[in-house]
Amino acid sequence: MASSEGNKLWGGRFVGNTDPIMEKFNASISYDQRMWKADIKGSKAYVKALQKASLVTQNEMEQILTGLDKVLDEWSKGEFEIKPGDEDIHTANERRLKELIGDAAGKLHTGRSRNDQVATDMRLWLRDGIATLKELALQLINTMVERAAAEIEILCPGYTHMQRAQPIRWSHWLLSHVVAISRDVERLEDIRKRVNVMPLGSGAIAGNPFDIDRKLLRQELSFDSISINSMDATGQRDFVAEFLFWGSMCLTHLSKMAEDLILYSTKEFSFINLTDAYSTGSSLMPQKKNADSLELIRSKAGRVFGRCAGFLMTLKGLPSTYNKDLQEDKEAMFDTYDTVHAVLQVATGVISTLKVNQAKMEEALSPDMLATDLAYHLVRKGMPFREAHGCAGKAVYIAESKNIRLSQLTVEDLQTVSSLFDKDVSSAWDYVKSVEQYSAPGGTSKSSVTAQIQHFKTWLQAQKL
Amino acid sequence: MASSEGNKLWGGRFVGNTDPIMEKFNASISYDQRMWKADIKGSKAYVKALQKASLVTQNEMEQILTGLDKVLDEWSKGEFEIKPGDEDIHTANERRLKELIGDAAGKLHTGRSRNDQVATDMRLWLRDGIATLKELALQLINTMVERAAAEIEILCPGYTHMQRAQPIRWSHWLLSHVVAISRDVERLEDIRKRVNVMPLGSGAIAGNPFDIDRKLLRQELSFDSISINSMDATGQRDFVAEFLFWGSMCLTHLSKMAEDLILYSTKEFSFINLTDAYSTGSSLMPQKKNADSLELIRSKAGRVFGRCAGFLMTLKGLPSTYNKDLQEDKEAMFDTYDTVHAVLQVATGVISTLKVNQAKMEEALSPDMLATDLAYHLVRKGMPFREAHGCAGKAVYIAESKNIRLSQLTVEDLQTVSSLFDKDVSSAWDYVKSVEQYSAPGGTSKSSVTAQIQHFKTWLQAQKL
Amino acid sequence: MASSEGNKLWGGRFVGNTDPIMEKFNASISYDQRMWKADIKGSKAYVKALQKASLVTQNEMEQILTGLDKVLDEWSKGEFEIKPGDEDIHTANERRLKELIGDAAGKLHTGRSRNDQVATDMRLWLRDGIATLKELALQLINTMVERAAAEIEILCPGYTHMQRAQPIRWSHWLLSHVVAISRDVERLEDIRKRVNVMPLGSGAIAGNPFDIDRKLLRQELSFDSISINSMDATGQRDFVAEFLFWGSMCLTHLSKMAEDLILYSTKEFSFINLTDAYSTGSSLMPQKKNADSLELIRSKAGRVFGRCAGFLMTLKGLPSTYNKDLQEDKEAMFDTYDTVHAVLQVATGVISTLKVNQAKMEEALSPDMLATDLAYHLVRKGMPFREAHGCAGKAVYIAESKNIRLSQLTVEDLQTVSSLFDKDVSSAWDYVKSVEQYSAPGGTSKSSVTAQIQHFKTWLQAQKL
Amino acid sequence: MASSEGNKLWGGRFVGNTDPIMEKFNASISYDQRMWKADIKGSKAYVKALQKASLVTQNEMEQILTGLDKVLDEWSKGEFEIKPGDEDIHTANERRLKELIGDAAGKLHTGRSRNDQVATDMRLWLRDGIATLKELALQLINTMVERAAAEIEILCPGYTHMQRAQPIRWSHWLLSHVVAISRDVERLEDIRKRVNVMPLGSGAIAGNPFDIDRKLLRQELSFDSISINSMDATGQRDFVAEFLFWGSMCLTHLSKMAEDLILYSTKEFSFINLTDAYSTGSSLMPQKKNADSLELIRSKAGRVFGRCAGFLMTLKGLPSTYNKDLQEDKEAMFDTYDTVHAVLQVATGVISTLKVNQAKMEEALSPDMLATDLAYHLVRKGMPFREAHGCAGKAVYIAESKNIRLSQLTVEDLQTVSSLFDKDVSSAWDYVKSVEQYSAPGGTSKSSVTAQIQHFKTWLQAQKL
Repeated sequence: MASSEGNKLWGGRFVGNTDPIMEKFNASISYDQRMWKADIKGSKAYVKALQKASLVTQNEMEQILTGLDKVLDEWSKGEFEIKPGDEDIHTANERRLKELIGDAAGKLHTGRSRNDQVATDMRLWLRDGIATLKELALQLINTMVERAAAEIEILCPGYTHMQRAQPIRWSHWLLSHVVAISRDVERLEDIRKRVNVMPLGSGAIAGNPFDIDRKLLRQELSFDSISINSMDATGQRDFVAEFLFWGSMCLTHLSKMAEDLILYSTKEFSFINLTDAYSTGSSLMPQKKNADSLELIRSKAGRVFGRCAGFLMTLKGLPSTYNKDLQEDKEAMFDTYDTVHAVLQVATGVISTLKVNQAKMEEALSPDMLATDLAYHLVRKGMPFREAHGCAGKAVYIAESKNIRLSQLTVEDLQTVSSLFDKDVSSAWDYVKSVEQYSAPGGTSKSSVTAQIQHFKTWLQAQKL
Repeated sequence: MASSEGNKLWGGRFVGNTDPIMEKFNASISYDQRMWKADIKGSKAYVKALQKASLVTQNEMEQILTGLDKVLDEWSKGEFEIKPGDEDIHTANERRLKELIGDAAGKLHTGRSRNDQVATDMRLWLRDGIATLKELALQLINTMVERAAAEIEILCPGYTHMQRAQPIRWSHWLLSHVVAISRDVERLEDIRKRVNVMPLGSGAIAGNPFDIDRKLLRQELSFDSISINSMDATGQRDFVAEFLFWGSMCLTHLSKMAEDLILYSTKEFSFINLTDAYSTGSSLMPQKKNADSLELIRSKAGRVFGRCAGFLMTLKGLPSTYNKDLQEDKEAMFDTYDTVHAVLQVATGVISTLKVNQAKMEEALSPDMLATDLAYHLVRKGMPFREAHGCAGKAVYIAESKNIRLSQLTVEDLQTVSSLFDKDVSSAWDYVKSVEQYSAPGGTSKSSVTAQIQHFKTWLQAQKL
Repeated sequence: MASSEGNKLWGGRFVGNTDPIMEKFNASISYDQRMWKADIKGSKAYVKALQKASLVTQNEMEQILTGLDKVLDEWSKGEFEIKPGDEDIHTANERRLKELIGDAAGKLHTGRSRNDQVATDMRLWLRDGIATLKELALQLINTMVERAAAEIEILCPGYTHMQRAQPIRWSHWLLSHVVAISRDVERLEDIRKRVNVMPLGSGAIAGNPFDIDRKLLRQELSFDSISINSMDATGQRDFVAEFLFWGSMCLTHLSKMAEDLILYSTKEFSFINLTDAYSTGSSLMPQKKNADSLELIRSKAGRVFGRCAGFLMTLKGLPSTYNKDLQEDKEAMFDTYDTVHAVLQVATGVISTLKVNQAKMEEALSPDMLATDLAYHLVRKGMPFREAHGCAGKAVYIAESKNIRLSQLTVEDLQTVSSLFDKDVSSAWDYVKSVEQYSAPGGTSKSSVTAQIQHFKTWLQAQKL
Repeated sequence: MASSEGNKLWGGRFVGNTDPIMEKFNASISYDQRMWKADIKGSKAYVKALQKASLVTQNEMEQILTGLDKVLDEWSKGEFEIKPGDEDIHTANERRLKELIGDAAGKLHTGRSRNDQVATDMRLWLRDGIATLKELALQLINTMVERAAAEIEILCPGYTHMQRAQPIRWSHWLLSHVVAISRDVERLEDIRKRVNVMPLGSGAIAGNPFDIDRKLLRQELSFDSISINSMDATGQRDFVAEFLFWGSMCLTHLSKMAEDLILYSTKEFSFINLTDAYSTGSSLMPQKKNADSLELIRSKAGRVFGRCAGFLMTLKGLPSTYNKDLQEDKEAMFDTYDTVHAVLQVATGVISTLKVNQAKMEEALSPDMLATDLAYHLVRKGMPFREAHGCAGKAVYIAESKNIRLSQLTVEDLQTVSSLFDKDVSSAWDYVKSVEQYSAPGGTSKSSVTAQIQHFKTWLQAQKL
């Protein structure tokens, strides 16, 4: 396959042909073409640095820049044609450049290696990807915060161990997930710092031998800083691994939220209803309305963590510097990006359209959920909490034995447990009052929830700057 | 998007439209179309059972069979057209069947659910996939066994801890990897048993209500057995998880082999040379000839294990029966299949074309690798091994101190360590003789290696039956 | 630390001391002592083979056997004392043997390496472990099958997507999990085959140089077969990786079952009650009764899969033959065994003591779960299922719009959807009748469930042989 | 087991006994006792807040503080006695406090739950752990930087794809790993921010009902901030998951470094020698000196990643808020800490004691590693790099065909490839000169390496502040 050989960036010393299965196995163009814009951007900056270092003339630089713009234009319009032998996006773009401008194209790679080129392309691509994901995460948070503000009066059971624990505000539940996602946004910012470091000018391993101006390159490409060591810059991929783990963590949060909502949308809970837009039916059972959107959200944490686990396993088994095994980095990065991208949008759609069944939520509040308050009644009368907890537990046991609700125990019943119980115990059986006790910061009282909402409104403003 | 709604298998009770992002998120047709043949095969069997159960007439059955053959024909020729609303291969095929034969198509799904249909399709597909992978693994084994037979005279260092340990036959190294891969073949057979169980006739969850003849279905589809419980049959995916782990294990073996070969192809070892067909060069460094084929092989265990880890994480987080999260099963299965498929072929190509540098291998044998033999010399004179090991260790230390090779120590030198050393110690410094000692089964002597080769020739014959 | 150096099996050529942190890092005695019995068993067999090969005399053999029995006795009684320098169980046992019988102990290691010794010990240990786990899994299955037989009359909702799907028998749910666990038992048998292969006689890498009788060793140690290649036998650990994955799969099944039961024990479902023996309370909320036992079961699949993932990552990054990294094999194996061991017992306890709330289960059946039957009503009148599914869907929609139950629709209401509906549609609203339709093998009818129970009773008998 | 029941924090409503297997399965005291100091610290702060909120008197507070100091003292001296029924460290400490001071102890838990208590304890513990690990990482970096400064003159081959690529400074290799570890230190700082957030005052789920002063608590415990939402604070564990991933990433870096060094310590490379303190021998082969320390370092990334994978799998499968499954958090955290703790120290020991074999490193430099320089010779004469790369490749091919070194080609030989070659090409064959070309920032020239060393010296200073 002479034509194919002819395009290879490394064809010189090779005489045999490549096994076609091997050729396909080796090629990355089917997925790395996605970085066409970053690749061209990097090349444009690089040729400027070459000109400054007198490795190309002003004229050659202009030819190359014009040529690269044409290549970019072809990609933008969907007209770029991949040819056999274009094993990766770097080869494809340089091949096309040569077709367009001739031999001057051959100067573009002076002192550059695919090792620093690909690391640069990936970092440029991911930097943009991170900005987009952050934007989508902020939209989700914004939706949730607004919903929390609008529905602050709705009470529902709070669960631990999937058992009814204490009454809470529905908004408190919403905000609990907002906090988790806001941490993901902050984590994304931390990652961004480490992504936005420029490897260009590191060559294959030893650095750049033409004293290229890396500060100029950094400015052209808007990187925050310059990589410190050429071997590290070309051989390490923690910025990818970190991003994959970030996706795993973020989707684990959304998986948890989805799990809650799937539970709340069962017939047995009936707390929420998904709109048809986010539900699907059964090919067999006509009555079914399944929360497929939530199940898909729930499933994706596994998928993305698989990418993280797989890539880390590949990475861990390597010595330092560039090894071809690193080619696994790109599909993992793209798939994680695409998955988180879709999940964030679907989650926003689900949250903004679901209907809350306030009556069902409030029906599900039951007096036994106030057993802690019963204990607090005794605490306020001076009994140590540990003892009060035991007394309230006994009261629960008596009510269960009598097959009545905890609130139906008479003061006499309660006094068999502790003589400290008196008539004002009846005031304990008020869910709103119970909720309003939790007024310390972070609690579920109206004031505390309002403070959380206010906190996130301010935070969202700050994020948008 | 009314036309799309119109095709959905579950559209009846729904009134709203689906969010387009959700629709894309939900659809699996982009990858599950790959099971078109299995899907049609399952449907052909199912309609026969429906006819037997009098749910379709003979005439309707024939219409449906003819229609399905036409659909199959369209797929075979690449003429099948996927339309908007074809969310999965099952919907697409039934939609097309209806276009071809009209309302009778609507009877095909009687008593069937996508839950048992998709599980059936996947098992049919994977059964074929397993057969193909087994064939490729046998080809690799055959190549390695033949190479081992041809190169049985070549000695090389055996390494433990990546340090020279004892001289071995090169064929012994080859066969060590054959054993591992042959276990993978046996494991694949074990998995095949559990894959080849028929879920069809399990409906969505409760079973089939029309007393469909599942034995007939089993025969039509050549399954080994019938699933025992409809909830398990539609909701469990261990057959997929097992396959993904199988791929991880198999590729871990090949990764190890690749790692050995990458090491052996370094300039420092220079034991082997890859042909150009399995090497690539550098875009920067003209002299480079990289063993990319081996590096890609090495990397893929990570990728596939990632699929396994990801899918298991998704699976673990679910209650029983079908949940939409299970949709993650197919891409993981396909990608694992494709990856192992490519790796086995490339590995066969590499092994069958690499050149062994016998001179370099034999140069790398050094007398210190016979220190165990020096200890055995003393053992044969009656010294307990533990003591002899200590003596040989001291001899090594003396040689190192004198900066000479172990074999250059004089008998007098040795006698300072133990008076049991005598002149015939010189016969220890013979690599062939050393190797020939290991004649117990599994050892590296010529007779033992020949027995291993014979074992695998017989085994390969048996596998092909 | 001279005394410590003195015990090391490899001290001869070393002159410096080991860094104490390194010494601790290197030592495995804290956990591998658990294999004391297997280690002694292997040594007893080995000394017999040494005697047969004339490497020890009859008298020396008897000394060693007697000594080893004493060591075994000390371990049995908890009197064995580990000393500084006992870096692993092999060193400790040999050190003690030497103290007991003197220099003859030094002959035991002739031609043996820790590489084949440790692989032998682990396989002996795991073989026993597998037998124990199988026994516990059978007990769990037996408990579940008996419960299924006793409670066959109880109906409950079957769920897909966590939404009510179709009525099923509670026993059908129980048996669905039995099927999964029975596959785990079968898988364990498959693994046992590959565990029960004897590496002893493989030395460090090249084999055994004294033509030791490996068949004798095999018989003494009741292995099924002898390893084929010494490099594979000492360097591969798939038998461990396979076992770790087995544990992950098995616990994933139990996690799913636990998840179902946690759901069923929520107040909202109230299908089951755990006994206090398997519940715990809250340190704060007196009314709480948490299904901690089930939550712990659910959590452990993660733990064990972590062991699998971690070990596979370590394994994948290695060249072939023994490398010290393999030392990670043992803690992973032990922890997986211990975890599965505990989970199976707790699961058996939970299942055998939980109380089923039949009334709540049957209350949860609702007419919309029979919508499929409504469609089948039309199918039986000749309407194609796909169309009937649409009609039933419309009926569901009308009932929802009218805010009545599906069964409350009049024949007139239904006839607005399809004129094929007639008076006998009323017979569709019978849950028992609905369930009894699913009489094909694997279905939820009484006959099918009984057949499943019978199947497992027979299977259990067969397993015990 | 009445005594055991008596201690349980939640015994009130329970009448049955716990299954002993279940009791053991449930208990965490065997490992969470490690947080004794953090637990007492948290309680001391909490009682001060209780006093401020008038829930305990000044006198009660003093009793409790004195009692807690006694408990602390017992732990410090190793005299604390764990009793049956002490299921976790919180129960144990409170039980002991009650023994020491009587009923006042029962007031300590007022408004607090184990849910916020355990999260607080873990964060306090991990905050200290992070400080220690950072210190150890800095020591390793310091050692490497000093070594890099001392050995800056040593050249060695730089490898990509494990093939000789270009000559580099040995210090450049050292610093490449320093960069990676310094990123780990920065990542640890990022994690610290998210660890150092106080959950105390969140109760079980709804918050604290006594308007406890959380700012006071924060100050007492030196947390940076207060958790925003009580459900998130008690139910999320990303701070643990993040730390586990951090450990995986850090050990992956050290695994890569270890892999390089293992390679360099093979006989074939012979670039370095480990001291005996970090090597071990073979029980069979007297000459062996294995780099066990490096192999153990290499293996541990797998172990720790397994912890990360396992915990994330457990986490992902949960709904929000506290579920008992979270109990898996602690062993994973402790094991990761211990492992990284040991690895960092052993790595420091290895790096500070290994001997570099400068002669062997320089012998391994070969003229073909200067083929890029040959191409640059032509580039400097105006030839486009792409063409020059081809020419140099041809030169390599000619030298290989003639079986001579690249530097042995005559000018005439070279001119058959390109007429641009002239006599001054001979100046290309100078390794030092070649290395000195790479003077752009991050390169391997002496000035660039010196700048890196300077960078890290400054950075280390800044870290210590």
